[in-house]
Amino acid sequence: MTTDAIALSADLIRCPSVTPEEGGALVLLGELLSEAGFDCTRVDRAGTPNLFARWGEKGAARSFGFNGHTDVVPTGDTAAWSRDPFGGEIEEGILWGRGAQDMKTAVAAFAAAAIDHVRDTPPDGAIVLAITGDEEGPGRDGTRALLDYMADQGEAMSVCLVGEPTCPEVMGEMIKIGRRGSLTFRIEAQGRQGHAAYPHRALNPLHALVDLLGQMTAEPLDTGTAHFQPSTLQVTTIDCGNPANNVIPARATATVNIRFNDAHSGASLIKWASDLAQTIARESGVTLTLTPDISGESFLTLPGPFVDLVAQAVADETGTVPELSTSGGTSDARFIKDHCPVVEFGLVGDRMHQIDEQVPIAQIATLKQIYARILKDYFA
Amino acid sequence: MTTDAIALSADLIRCPSVTPEEGGALVLLGELLSEAGFDCTRVDRAGTPNLFARWGEKGAARSFGFNGHTDVVPTGDTAAWSRDPFGGEIEEGILWGRGAQDMKTAVAAFAAAAIDHVRDTPPDGAIVLAITGDEEGPGRDGTRALLDYMADQGEAMSVCLVGEPTCPEVMGEMIKIGRRGSLTFRIEAQGRQGHAAYPHRALNPLHALVDLLGQMTAEPLDTGTAHFQPSTLQVTTIDCGNPANNVIPARATATVNIRFNDAHSGASLIKWASDLAQTIARESGVTLTLTPDISGESFLTLPGPFVDLVAQAVADETGTVPELSTSGGTSDARFIKDHCPVVEFGLVGDRMHQIDEQVPIAQIATLKQIYARILKDYFA
Ligand SMILES: [Zn+2]
Ligand SMILES: [Zn+2]
Repeated sequence: MTTDAIALSADLIRCPSVTPEEGGALVLLGELLSEAGFDCTRVDRAGTPNLFARWGEKGAARSFGFNGHTDVVPTGDTAAWSRDPFGGEIEEGILWGRGAQDMKTAVAAFAAAAIDHVRDTPPDGAIVLAITGDEEGPGRDGTRALLDYMADQGEAMSVCLVGEPTCPEVMGEMIKIGRRGSLTFRIEAQGRQGHAAYPHRALNPLHALVDLLGQMTAEPLDTGTAHFQPSTLQVTTIDCGNPANNVIPARATATVNIRFNDAHSGASLIKWASDLAQTIARESGVTLTLTPDISGESFLTLPGPFVDLVAQAVADETGTVPELSTSGGTSDARFIKDHCPVVEFGLVGDRMHQIDEQVPIAQIATLKQIYARILKDYFA
Repeated sequence: MTTDAIALSADLIRCPSVTPEEGGALVLLGELLSEAGFDCTRVDRAGTPNLFARWGEKGAARSFGFNGHTDVVPTGDTAAWSRDPFGGEIEEGILWGRGAQDMKTAVAAFAAAAIDHVRDTPPDGAIVLAITGDEEGPGRDGTRALLDYMADQGEAMSVCLVGEPTCPEVMGEMIKIGRRGSLTFRIEAQGRQGHAAYPHRALNPLHALVDLLGQMTAEPLDTGTAHFQPSTLQVTTIDCGNPANNVIPARATATVNIRFNDAHSGASLIKWASDLAQTIARESGVTLTLTPDISGESFLTLPGPFVDLVAQAVADETGTVPELSTSGGTSDARFIKDHCPVVEFGLVGDRMHQIDEQVPIAQIATLKQIYARILKDYFA
């Protein structure tokens, strides 16, 4: 008898766990995993719910980790949904609801695979499930809290698989072996107000800002690296709010978002932008203040035994050889990469965060089989 | 017996004529000038009050014009004033109130000088007073309405003296023989919204805008001309209002104000900016819409008999040889220059538009003497 990942997916969808609500999802998983012999601990921090579960010895030489999240983004207009977004309805082979792709199904699939594996073939090692209730929110007290807890307690993962949806359109077509980093600068330019007819008596903060942003956008940051697409830099807003066209304003602000590959680090980009700003500030007299926020460094798990193991399992179960990609936004792998090799594999994500999020239940079954094969091969 | 320009100044200050209110100022002047034998006509247009007054024959070969305004800017916080801004108080040789410098005093001075002149030495020609109640406001129906009326009626000025305050610090030190033009562009950049991590699917309007503004500000427009300081270009606002740093916005706007000398015209600058925008739009795909507003072309009355006459009168009465300047913002001379040679001379303007606007009454007396001498010399 095997654990039903599809029924568990539907049960999890019925938990209204919009970030930061726990919604019963981690409680349900904790009970199920405890019954199956996992040591379960709620690792809540600053009101954020998290679940740590381990089967096997703490500090085992071989410890396989899964990471995922049970929180979901808001439903948007529920009247626009064809089904109750928290109903967990299955009809004609389709499971409907918020989290059907991102990513209650993957959590259900790896929990079910792990439970079956430890029952049927108790491994020589440990299986760790680090499940957070805050991946869609600020993420400060989610997977980071779990990793801090593990470091404190001497818990460890030798490798980690994150179950985010990674396939653009076809099940099995893509594994993420890295992600670009993300860095946001808030820029404040402080000059001196004055009359537009007498600019020599004023200091126009907008001219310094245009100069800085012009230099930041003039050339691509790079042309890509062995495993990454080129880094990108986008000015996302500039604001001043001066209604008087005969007045030079005193102050203006802008925001710049950078998605960077392994040719850069948060620190190298901060130095680059600060140097540009310093030169312009010195020449113009305008005070330029850059406030950087690194939401994640880039990560890359080089192709090797762990990547091969995951890719082979995907190929065996789906018949598709997955692309090893580093595309897309950030994920919690950006935190995990400091602890152990990490890759991401999950469902097709074409409907994530949308109205009528849904998934064919056959995909959930396939995903569980892939995760099961990965565990089998890892502990073989 | 001479007309008291100081008492008339105080009377005008007591008229609360904040733009667009007439406040009794033009009524008072109309009565006074009518009594003195001037043909007076109210030339109100679209609710804006204006007064046209002429002594002598319509269409006289020699017709001397004065132009000025009785409207004033708002007082700001009246509690911050040391005296009632509409009290017209005189104490220890100082006249207090809104309009004491800009420019009820000059209107009083030229009205008094004109009344005395036609009574004492009736000229062989005409004296025209074109006084508006909307110079501080939009100015669409102020001096322009007076000039339109004059053209319609066959009224004319051979030369015109505008009584705006022209002296930076010392009475008599500056005549304005020209002013730079002023042109404002409102710029709209329309792109396509998208996720900051996938810029190839979006079109960032801010990048096109930064590019355009960077090109517009990169080099000075010119290095000045024989009679003018360099033109200036100032970005006065950029606005987008996008709160999400992971989103590329769809639209952004900016405003640019240009003060241009006689090396340019409104039309030449519009072509210059439009060409830059067109190239950037073609290369980027972002739609850039420029909406220009020429609030005034530049004007220049070349040094010659009229300028010499005014400068000599100033030097004779004050002992100071005035600088012939083209500095500063716009004035209604920008409209008059299409009708006849025009120069500007008036009081020290160091307190105009400020709290506690005030003027030494001795300056008003001197100004009246200067205007009187100009009339005498012109009709000699
Ligand atoms: Zn997710
Ligand atoms: Zn004025």
